[in-house]
Amino acid sequence: MKSAPIRARAIGVIRSPWTAAHGTPVQPAFAEGALGQVVIDPAYAEALTDIEGFDRLWLIYWFDRAAPYRPLVTPYLDDRPHGVLATRSPTRPNPIGLSAVRLVERRGCTLEVADLDVLDGTPLLDVKPYVPRFDAWPGRAGWLDDAPCETTRDDGRFGREPGSEG
Amino acid sequence: MKSAPIRARAIGVIRSPWTAAHGTPVQPAFAEGALGQVVIDPAYAEALTDIEGFDRLWLIYWFDRAAPYRPLVTPYLDDRPHGVLATRSPTRPNPIGLSAVRLVERRGCTLEVADLDVLDGTPLLDVKPYVPRFDAWPGRAGWLDDAPCETTRDDGRFGREPGSEG
Repeated sequence: MKSAPIRARAIGVIRSPWTAAHGTPVQPAFAEGALGQVVIDPAYAEALTDIEGFDRLWLIYWFDRAAPYRPLVTPYLDDRPHGVLATRSPTRPNPIGLSAVRLVERRGCTLEVADLDVLDGTPLLDVKPYVPRFDAWPGRAGWLDDAPCETTRDDGRFGREPGSEG
Repeated sequence: MKSAPIRARAIGVIRSPWTAAHGTPVQPAFAEGALGQVVIDPAYAEALTDIEGFDRLWLIYWFDRAAPYRPLVTPYLDDRPHGVLATRSPTRPNPIGLSAVRLVERRGCTLEVADLDVLDGTPLLDVKPYVPRFDAWPGRAGWLDDAPCETTRDDGRFGREPGSEG
């Protein structure tokens, strides 16, 4: 098993209306058009060339305010625990988040995006174009296909705020 | 701009038939069923609970053999350069890869997967369930919708091997 430390760096920051985990949509699909900005470090301006042609972008980010790793979690969309790697919850071994957001406009190094489900101030690790022929697959979604809950907003259970489970 | 270093760790390793970048499929969509294993560190066994119900998984991994960051690249599917953040090429500021692979079988901490486009020995950072209602979106894919090339196998241009651009 490889175990050399892996060092990443923020290439920008995500600005959103969500300043506390409690109340934040738990997926872009539930964010109802929430607007925000992906502010990329100007050092990477050239690397953004031609990004404006894509309808959606993948944001890969670091859940910097998530509670520590927990192997089992009860996610927002179910009332039973599942392994955290079988969920999209943030208390992962590496707290990496993945969201497909809608690209509204590019202004220099600022990307105006919609359907944002990310906490304000979250460090950005990567942006990739969303490519339907690589990324859009039908299929079965395990426990989520049968899950009884429809909790679409964060209730604080995965955060470090007082009152959270973490 | 946040700049505190972010430390991640491998939670497992990806085993694939692709031992050199040259010839490796550049996306799962081009991998024609290539089989491999995602071998998770047994320390995370409990975190895999219920993962077997999903048809596809997101693998998030570290391109450990990619050439250093280059702001502009000519990707496999076009004959013109684009900003690397507007491509899926590996020479990114943080060399993080994202692939939706098909889950064939779980055997303990080993996930047998298909449609694998990842180099053998690649460190795994995260596994997430692929959830069509969060992840499958139609839409325009920028320069890719008009790109003239159909190079579906790596020709070494992003690697560290002798003869590569890197």
